[in-house]
Amino acid sequence: MPVSLHEIQQAAKRIKPYIHRTPVLTNESLNQQVGAQVFLKCENLQKIGAFKFRGACNAIFSLTDEEAKHGVCTHSSGNHAQAVALAARMRGIPAYIVIPSNAPQVKKKAVAGYGGQITFCEPTLEARESALNRIKLDTGATVVHPFNDERVIAGQGTATLELLEDVPDLDVIITPVGGGGLISGTSIAAAGIKKGIRVIGGEPENANDAFRSMQAGEIIPSLNPNSIADGLLSSLGSITFPLIQKNVEQIVTVSESGIIESMKYIWERAKIIIEPSSAVAIAVLWEKKINLSGLKVGVIISGGNVDLNKLHWQS
Amino acid sequence: MPVSLHEIQQAAKRIKPYIHRTPVLTNESLNQQVGAQVFLKCENLQKIGAFKFRGACNAIFSLTDEEAKHGVCTHSSGNHAQAVALAARMRGIPAYIVIPSNAPQVKKKAVAGYGGQITFCEPTLEARESALNRIKLDTGATVVHPFNDERVIAGQGTATLELLEDVPDLDVIITPVGGGGLISGTSIAAAGIKKGIRVIGGEPENANDAFRSMQAGEIIPSLNPNSIADGLLSSLGSITFPLIQKNVEQIVTVSESGIIESMKYIWERAKIIIEPSSAVAIAVLWEKKINLSGLKVGVIISGGNVDLNKLHWQS
Repeated sequence: MPVSLHEIQQAAKRIKPYIHRTPVLTNESLNQQVGAQVFLKCENLQKIGAFKFRGACNAIFSLTDEEAKHGVCTHSSGNHAQAVALAARMRGIPAYIVIPSNAPQVKKKAVAGYGGQITFCEPTLEARESALNRIKLDTGATVVHPFNDERVIAGQGTATLELLEDVPDLDVIITPVGGGGLISGTSIAAAGIKKGIRVIGGEPENANDAFRSMQAGEIIPSLNPNSIADGLLSSLGSITFPLIQKNVEQIVTVSESGIIESMKYIWERAKIIIEPSSAVAIAVLWEKKINLSGLKVGVIISGGNVDLNKLHWQS
Repeated sequence: MPVSLHEIQQAAKRIKPYIHRTPVLTNESLNQQVGAQVFLKCENLQKIGAFKFRGACNAIFSLTDEEAKHGVCTHSSGNHAQAVALAARMRGIPAYIVIPSNAPQVKKKAVAGYGGQITFCEPTLEARESALNRIKLDTGATVVHPFNDERVIAGQGTATLELLEDVPDLDVIITPVGGGGLISGTSIAAAGIKKGIRVIGGEPENANDAFRSMQAGEIIPSLNPNSIADGLLSSLGSITFPLIQKNVEQIVTVSESGIIESMKYIWERAKIIIEPSSAVAIAVLWEKKINLSGLKVGVIISGGNVDLNKLHWQS
């Protein structure tokens, strides 16, 4: 079923008992720095430290009991893996997570900590797809894709319902863009609630498949993208791309140094930990490549999962 | 005038236009780790990154116009200095801040950034008191003491009004203890709103003057306290000590390693930046020196001002 405001509202009701209603923070220094009134929707303070929990939760709690009893599966080493593991645990069903053998230890531990059953695979697309297929065959588990799934997209859109409840008169919403699940849900929710509100995506210059796809009018996957914003290396999907084409005003690309500077600025001034992928949306304001002067701008802070044993601004 | 719930409620009205209403966050991992239901009142997300803004704001907006026009002054190199500078700027009056010449550059810049007029002095008590006296004589400015001042104490208590509005059924509130302004205001607000609620102070073992003063029944100042929790090195004052004696159940001391571990845990799990002084209150739960098992525990996260060019858990 195509995602509309109605599905996002249904998703919000469905996941409400399980998620945090995250705060919206403002910061006067940031406003002065970027020349706009910025409202940070803090999904880094969401369960598992990222908005991904909303989508996984909606997908998993949408399953029939018959579907659910066989569990769910996905391949990911990032926030989506943790999100699926925790949502499945809350529903009381198994989560089978395929993780490349070279993923950082901290990510494996996080997934295991939420009760996910890990299958390691070689770090190639073929290996993880074949591992996932085997799990599906063996267990009957339902695949929960990280972004190319209507239930996931509807779940991600629920953050925008809350944001517009708290700040109804926003002019613009900016989100980071990886596979496009967050911005798809955001743009449907925003357009459904407030006609004419602008939705803009931020993307690393070094992983600019969405920017190029919008220019070309067709999906142009990234080849070997390489950005500090490691949550945004996926390319758009067959479901997310048309939604973005329809609903998103534009994709703005940002530099690696802009990502790092704005990440550090938010840590220092707003006192919240954001991951590089979140800083990509801030960097759209920071680098002032488009004129948002004086506007009320909502930014979805997508997550806060970083390795705290190093600092990205130090070599 | 002695501080009562009424003064704290008046302070809340007075400062409301100027402060952030800070969020109260919960974290399931933390709850499991410490065996209690913990509610983090995030004053690290307050303006200037610390609860100190509440007290300074209340003191400064309590002044008559005649008093105010001569400005305010204080000596501090910490969060209180920034708080006084910003609150004075909001009232449109000068703030004269005496800072020891050896204070970190970042702190001087922060005070100057909020419009404070800095006077440097030698890093001794005598030098800073004589510098402050000279400013008073020269300008007629009103001194805003960091903690031993009823208006400041009333301002600090306003965080607890908000916390108990959001979570009325708390069993216990824990705050860090330095000079005692925060815990004094907290304990008066808490006792005024909810009879029988427990208020507990956390203090570094290495700066345990409040613990020793409570034992002795008189103020025993710290001699050369040395803790990573650099906001808690002050000793209790003549106003705060009797309030703490009357209203605070006990002071619990925590180790330096407990402070660092719990600070890192909060960064990692709650995705907020807290300073070591804030972690002292978490460490009371973390080190389990007293039994708070199963209780609903509010913790005032006092601030988030740290140097982000180093990590305290790395040598």
